[in-house]
Amino acid sequence: MINENQNRSSANTSQDFVLFGALGNLSLKKLLPAMYQLELSGLLDKSLVMHCVVRDGVSASELSSKITKFIKPRLPKGTFNEGVWSNFIDRIKCINVDLEDPSQYKKLTKALHNNNSVVTYYFALPPRLFEVVCDNLYSAGIIYKSSKIVIEKPIGRDYESSQKINDKLADYFEEERIYRIDHYLGKETVQNLIALRFANSILSNLWNSKNIEYVEITATETIGIEDRWGYYDGVGQMRDMLQSHLLQLLCLVAMEPPNHLNSLNVRYEKEQVLKALEPITDNIIRAQYVDGEVSGKSVPGYLNEEGGSAQSDTETYICMRAEISNWRWSGTPFYLRTGKRLANKVTEIVIHFKPDQHFIFDKDQKGLSGNSLIIRLQPTEGISIDILTKDQGIEKGMRLRKDPLNLDFVESQKVSRIPDAYEKLILEMLNSEQRLFVSRNEVELAWKWCDQAIQISNHTSQQLHHYSAGSNGPDIAKEMIQKYGHRWHEDR
Amino acid sequence: MINENQNRSSANTSQDFVLFGALGNLSLKKLLPAMYQLELSGLLDKSLVMHCVVRDGVSASELSSKITKFIKPRLPKGTFNEGVWSNFIDRIKCINVDLEDPSQYKKLTKALHNNNSVVTYYFALPPRLFEVVCDNLYSAGIIYKSSKIVIEKPIGRDYESSQKINDKLADYFEEERIYRIDHYLGKETVQNLIALRFANSILSNLWNSKNIEYVEITATETIGIEDRWGYYDGVGQMRDMLQSHLLQLLCLVAMEPPNHLNSLNVRYEKEQVLKALEPITDNIIRAQYVDGEVSGKSVPGYLNEEGGSAQSDTETYICMRAEISNWRWSGTPFYLRTGKRLANKVTEIVIHFKPDQHFIFDKDQKGLSGNSLIIRLQPTEGISIDILTKDQGIEKGMRLRKDPLNLDFVESQKVSRIPDAYEKLILEMLNSEQRLFVSRNEVELAWKWCDQAIQISNHTSQQLHHYSAGSNGPDIAKEMIQKYGHRWHEDR
Repeated sequence: MINENQNRSSANTSQDFVLFGALGNLSLKKLLPAMYQLELSGLLDKSLVMHCVVRDGVSASELSSKITKFIKPRLPKGTFNEGVWSNFIDRIKCINVDLEDPSQYKKLTKALHNNNSVVTYYFALPPRLFEVVCDNLYSAGIIYKSSKIVIEKPIGRDYESSQKINDKLADYFEEERIYRIDHYLGKETVQNLIALRFANSILSNLWNSKNIEYVEITATETIGIEDRWGYYDGVGQMRDMLQSHLLQLLCLVAMEPPNHLNSLNVRYEKEQVLKALEPITDNIIRAQYVDGEVSGKSVPGYLNEEGGSAQSDTETYICMRAEISNWRWSGTPFYLRTGKRLANKVTEIVIHFKPDQHFIFDKDQKGLSGNSLIIRLQPTEGISIDILTKDQGIEKGMRLRKDPLNLDFVESQKVSRIPDAYEKLILEMLNSEQRLFVSRNEVELAWKWCDQAIQISNHTSQQLHHYSAGSNGPDIAKEMIQKYGHRWHEDR
Repeated sequence: MINENQNRSSANTSQDFVLFGALGNLSLKKLLPAMYQLELSGLLDKSLVMHCVVRDGVSASELSSKITKFIKPRLPKGTFNEGVWSNFIDRIKCINVDLEDPSQYKKLTKALHNNNSVVTYYFALPPRLFEVVCDNLYSAGIIYKSSKIVIEKPIGRDYESSQKINDKLADYFEEERIYRIDHYLGKETVQNLIALRFANSILSNLWNSKNIEYVEITATETIGIEDRWGYYDGVGQMRDMLQSHLLQLLCLVAMEPPNHLNSLNVRYEKEQVLKALEPITDNIIRAQYVDGEVSGKSVPGYLNEEGGSAQSDTETYICMRAEISNWRWSGTPFYLRTGKRLANKVTEIVIHFKPDQHFIFDKDQKGLSGNSLIIRLQPTEGISIDILTKDQGIEKGMRLRKDPLNLDFVESQKVSRIPDAYEKLILEMLNSEQRLFVSRNEVELAWKWCDQAIQISNHTSQQLHHYSAGSNGPDIAKEMIQKYGHRWHEDR
């Protein structure tokens, strides 16, 4: 039953933060370091207890020594503080629970603050465990009306399976207490999209198909699959990256201005974009990397990775041309691409503005015209606008050149580091603010659209292409965009 | 008579460059160094001879030693080259002419190449000598159909006197051979206005009163009048700076897109702006500096400068609100200001874009909104756009901050120095290209408008204000602009 204890949502509550999978990769690499940074900034409530749920046989001292050993040497320069660290470790309680054994949840019940705490369940777990853990929490009577749940992608592997997960969550938690993480939404530059678009009239006035020729959204990695073959094979880049991260970026770039900056308005507008996405009929390219070189070092192709098998048509690269059928965007394509084992690690959004038709400068330079706005998320965070100016030098007459007007966020704001996305997301969640989390509708609309695209791309006519590890991806991705008179940012 | 010798405009001509006032300030500080830089860049025709006209008693060796002594130590770092300098000095011929004695012009006649040269007369002279020198050149028969004349501002001190000068020039030279210099037009950043405005659709699409709230054009100096009292008093900042430089900048910012980038089209469009300027009825502030401090050093007020007199109401500062009555600009004021002995040496154009009306961020930050484009000519050359972004730091929520997207021309183009305006202007003139020179119409339209403004500002009701040397000018200039809800760039 849902425990109706009302005290648990009163103002002066204490906080129980229950971390499932506390010694997993995500927890050690992201969540616990993020919690420590919040501690360092004084942003954690005094009352907050971190209940780290681990398997039987791990002692409390083992737990804290493992956490210390892993995290301490990896903290960003200048952020370790002995006193803060010891406060942080003091918050940790070790709870040994075999997740599939309902009887063991009593330990958790006992450990929670009594009556007056808000309990957050953070599932840093494989999705297959979501259901059983929910059931067992429920049976133990420790899902309260005020309890929150935090889950990570992947939420299913298609529309149908995502629905099942969402249904299960909905049995126990109201939508306003479900925090679905797409960590891209916690990145400063991604949040900055909102500021850029809606606080700058010079951009908002141009933000439509009348002024924008096309949009590129790119997320490339240099790493390959490595030891994740087991998870990744059969999933592929479309489900792993495009359905979540890239579509979220697309929504933030394309959405109508919300009336207010709250989660209701913002998530509603994002959903409208997903609803307006045209089904894919063509212009979708799937590819897989073969043996190649990264930074002068030979690396294996996808099929030759550890744990790989000789046959798989899972794509490690996907590139597509999406169209949004609404007043603002009809006629402006959004090119999405993402891949592994490519030449560079880049995440960026590039807005290509339409050039003026009349050109009064030397005709041979007409190809130069067209401004772009580049919003960089990786490897550095910042924005720039490519602008045409007169080439210096008196003998050059009125020759043009393109230069970036630059703003690097680390440099300009004189911050020593940009906070990790998880710091922001955990803080927002603790403050019960859902704007940076993904709604059920968003997840399901994104899956529906991707399911259809996957279906199209699985047609026998749509072959799987190949590219060398360390390259810029398959040439056919260039051809696809050139067909429309467009060019990728790196080819300009 | 105009010498009709046709050979002098044929293609394979040699060049005679006749410099009147060769040992004057302008020649030593600007023209001759510019010619040397052209020599260094290999941009001077082999045939070109520089006939330096000086008063009787200066020998050729004296002339070249004076030039070498003055210029050599002042050349920009890394630009002196022994061989080039000696070639440069070899071009110089010393001609001793008492300008008011017609008989002495024979020396010049003899010195010129025969028949097949284009002769350029550069008047680095006080305006009172223009007429007599023209007459004497004419009498000597050395004004050819192909001859050019170059003159500097001031071209008169009001509409009437400028007409007289222009009439005199027109007696001897066709308008296409008259090169009126406003050296601002030779500055790289000023030329860049054309590239910025007409090669960048993101700017051209916003370049009108629908998107631009107001425009600031500022040219301030830290120096005072010093030993120029005799020239300056009774002239003032309006005639000395605003009528020429500031109105030229205004024209380039405001003009309609020319169909072609030639002098005919560009000068025509500039004239249309001057014609559309509304007569001034109000909002004009004249001021004079009084004793003050510059960089911690006491400096005298205008009346106390060397050569000053106890009584003068000449303005050393002028500030006004200009309006352009045409489709593009009605409703967008242009604030012009220029002054001497101010806190900073700044020349800049600031375009203030209208903010969006709907504001979804914290209401207390609404004042931040509004983008500006800043085009800097002094002290550095570059452009920047003030843009609102999210303030970094997870605890700040969605707070905004304003940062510049920056482009510094020296840095970005990796040039060691930006060429002086005169290098560009002399080169253009040698190539018979008039786009960067001021037409007769422009001069006269500018005077007409300024004459009217001066008349208004001389009304007894328009008092002369005062400001301390080293300050930001009179407070009333702030009030004038604030009355309309606007602010100067430095006050934002």
